[in-house]
Amino acid sequence: MDIFKSVDLVKKANIYFDGNVTSRSFVDSEGERKSLGIMMPGTYNFGTAAAEIMEIVSGECEVKLNGSDEWKTYTSGTTFNVPANSNFDIKVKTVTDYYCSYIK
Amino acid sequence: MDIFKSVDLVKKANIYFDGNVTSRSFVDSEGERKSLGIMMPGTYNFGTAAAEIMEIVSGECEVKLNGSDEWKTYTSGTTFNVPANSNFDIKVKTVTDYYCSYIK
Repeated sequence: MDIFKSVDLVKKANIYFDGNVTSRSFVDSEGERKSLGIMMPGTYNFGTAAAEIMEIVSGECEVKLNGSDEWKTYTSGTTFNVPANSNFDIKVKTVTDYYCSYIK
Repeated sequence: MDIFKSVDLVKKANIYFDGNVTSRSFVDSEGERKSLGIMMPGTYNFGTAAAEIMEIVSGECEVKLNGSDEWKTYTSGTTFNVPANSNFDIKVKTVTDYYCSYIK
């Protein structure tokens, strides 16, 4: 079982899209901001400030990055990168557990 | 902003009721197991092993403990206790962010 050790975890959830997407923010032991979240089935668009890495922990979704015409499928254990100051469309097919970290 | 400091956070979410209830498990700096979760609107029944304290961080729900005929309403900042080896019915009225800890 993967465990993030010695992190500072924010009590209050981040709630988006009427709760269909929620996440928990934490700062890891090296001072990096990260989040763990859940997306219910549906279609969403997310913007980025910093460039990020999205890892699908479980579930299935299709993603189209801004500037691309291609939908790509991601499932458990796969990741995709999103540039800074960009956005992406995502079609969540089954309840998706994700891990988001930021690219320095 | 309330933050749990120096906790060990499990990467993988706990997913119940087709994702309508999800939670994140962690062990706090004193070695106590806790969780932070989200309940989407709906009606659920939960069983307990250890006695627990449920704090509603945001949202609104009605709760009926096993053996009671009374539904009680809980909103942001309120808590209810559930005995060990028991269960409760909960009607989640609006997306509910909760914090669960255990009674020793």
